[in-house]
Parts: sequence; structure tokens; C-alpha cells
Amino acid sequence: MKLHRVLPYAKELLLQTVEPGETVIDATAGNGNDTEFLAEHVGENGHVFAFDIQQQALDTTYTRLSSLNERVTLVLDSHANVQEYVTGEIGGAMFNLGYLPYGEDLTIITEPDSTIKAVERILGLLKVGGIVTITVYDGHKGGDIERDALLSYVKHLHQRDVHVIRYELINQRKNPPFLIAIEKMRSFTTPRQVE
Amino acid sequence: MKLHRVLPYAKELLLQTVEPGETVIDATAGNGNDTEFLAEHVGENGHVFAFDIQQQALDTTYTRLSSLNERVTLVLDSHANVQEYVTGEIGGAMFNLGYLPYGEDLTIITEPDSTIKAVERILGLLKVGGIVTITVYDGHKGGDIERDALLSYVKHLHQRDVHVIRYELINQRKNPPFLIAIEKMRSFTTPRQVE
Repeated sequence: MKLHRVLPYAKELLLQTVEPGETVIDATAGNGNDTEFLAEHVGENGHVFAFDIQQQALDTTYTRLSSLNERVTLVLDSHANVQEYVTGEIGGAMFNLGYLPYGEDLTIITEPDSTIKAVERILGLLKVGGIVTITVYDGHKGGDIERDALLSYVKHLHQRDVHVIRYELINQRKNPPFLIAIEKMRSFTTPRQVE
Repeated sequence: MKLHRVLPYAKELLLQTVEPGETVIDATAGNGNDTEFLAEHVGENGHVFAFDIQQQALDTTYTRLSSLNERVTLVLDSHANVQEYVTGEIGGAMFNLGYLPYGEDLTIITEPDSTIKAVERILGLLKVGGIVTITVYDGHKGGDIERDALLSYVKHLHQRDVHVIRYELINQRKNPPFLIAIEKMRSFTTPRQVE
């Protein structure tokens, strides 16, 4: 298939923009899929900070990573506190919103306020030309609220600071996720908002 | 920039899927930009059928193409009548909806019924694995009606017959076009619609 589904497209964008040796962020470790993907790509000289608020997620990720754990710091905290753990420039970041698949408590979900705070802070850390991908699921309870808040936030980001795309398969029966990808166009600490 | 704007992204998809030597369609010749791009890409053994309902558009395209005219058939007719001109398999197709830029009469626009008919017929001619791109402008009078009719049509195309993506920059001040891209997943004459 030539038209990528959403997750492979997100990975493709990261592959194109993250260089081996760079530091990157998996803002939602979940079951470790993206953490593993990023750890493989940044190589032995790179590093991944993987955040999750559930110990179960970090345990699963740790097991999955095996020897790749050397390249990864697992952080049991909200991604909104990213600046307490990561201070240097990063090459890219991935978010996978919603609940922890196969988790013990599916009502634990990413929340609009902390998601937006994390996106904003991570954009500050991102290199110019780097990309943040956000895979948005809106089928679960609360997912629509987070989606709308996040879309409103990213649509108002200044076009000279970042470019924001939305990528979506629109003829699928099940409610698949859609992708928001944000590319940093110039240096800033906090991206500007426009009316 | 790593995140393509809409027109370069459409071209990228065609470059990935159209092979030199194939026949392709520019469903909206306009000022000939896409016709020229396609004629260059299919090479001297390929062919482009370029449709427009305005003689002015075909004249501009003819002048622009220069020696590439050998590879191009200009058709002064609605793209909805595509089957009267093209009968073999095609490798890809491009649509650029709206009015003719710099045209004499900007009220002459692509219309929902003929656009949808043309898309449907062109999908029938398309090779499996081929892509049709549709750049949608909705800022002009009538553009919103065409956009909504077209989106409703493509969203209801059966996911086993085609995959449909929507690609859009969402933080731009001016109302930029968005892209619909359709990949043919299996052989058919007319794609199925689902409820």
C-alpha cells in the first residue's frame, strides 16, 4: 500500500527527521512500541526518554526493550513535567493518546491540559526541522474532548513557528486514529499562539 | 521543510506510483502545471490526457508544454466524459478543483456532479495500486458545496476497493487547499459505496 496508515506514516516522518545519536521523547510509553522503534533508530549513541503515568506501562516497556534499555530512560511521571527530566535539544517526539491498550484501568486516559502542556514544552526542546507526531484516538469516553482541545491549540500555533498537518484515512469503518504532525520552523522556547 | 505542502505532497504520491511509459490523466488542465509535471514523469513512451472545459486553459497549457505536447492529448470537454477519450488502464490521475487561476471568468468552476462522476470513472480506469489526487479549494463561492459533496462521496467508498486519505495543513492563515488521495486496492469497474 502506497498511502500509509497513520502509525506507519508517523514513523516515516520520524525516520526522515531524527538522526542517529540524537535524544528523542516517547511521551506515552504505553506498551513500548514507539519506544522500541525510537531506541532502534537513534542507535547506541542516541537516547530515548519514555514517559508514562502507569507503572504497568513502564514494566511492559522495560520487558519489551530487553538490551535496548541501555538507550532508554523510563519516567514514571506526566509528560507535562518533561522539562524536569530533559533539558537538552531533542530530535523528535511521539505521542499516542488515549488509554493504555490492555491496561488494568481503561478509564486512565491522557488528558487535554497535560497533553497540551507537554506538546508545548516538547516543541520548545525540539530542534528546528524536527517533528512531533501525535496519534489521536477519539473513540473512547473523553477522547472527543481531548481531540477538540488539542486541535484548537495546534490550529492556533503561529505558522512561522511551526507547520501543523492533519493526516487521516477517511473511509474506514472502524474509527481509526488520525495524525497530527508538527514541524518546528524556527528557534523558540514557547511557540506563539495567534487569534 | 519535511512536512510537504499539499501540491508537493500530491506530486510525491504520483511520483511514487506512476511508472514511466504509463498513461495518466490531468483531469483539470488549468494553466498546465500538473500536465507538464505528469508529461515529464511519464517520459517519451508515456502519455497524458489533459481535460479542461475552457479553451483558454488548453491554450495556456499548449504554450507551456512546448515540445512536451507530443506526449499530451488536450481535450476540450468535461472530465466526466473521460471514458469517451481514454479506454485503457491508467497509472494515475490528478484533479485541481475550483476555478481557472487568472482565467477570464472566475465563476466557471468545477461542479460537484461532474467532479464525482469523473472521479468514479477514473477510478475504474486506474491500475491497482495507483493513486488519484484531488486538491480541493473551498474558499470560492460554491467551493464549500463541492467539497462537502465530494467528501461525502469518498468517505462512503468501500475500504476494500480504495483507501482514501485527507491531508491538510491546519494552522495556515490563508485558506490553503487540502488534499484527498485515493489508492485503488483491487480491480473494479465502479467502486462500491457503503452506507
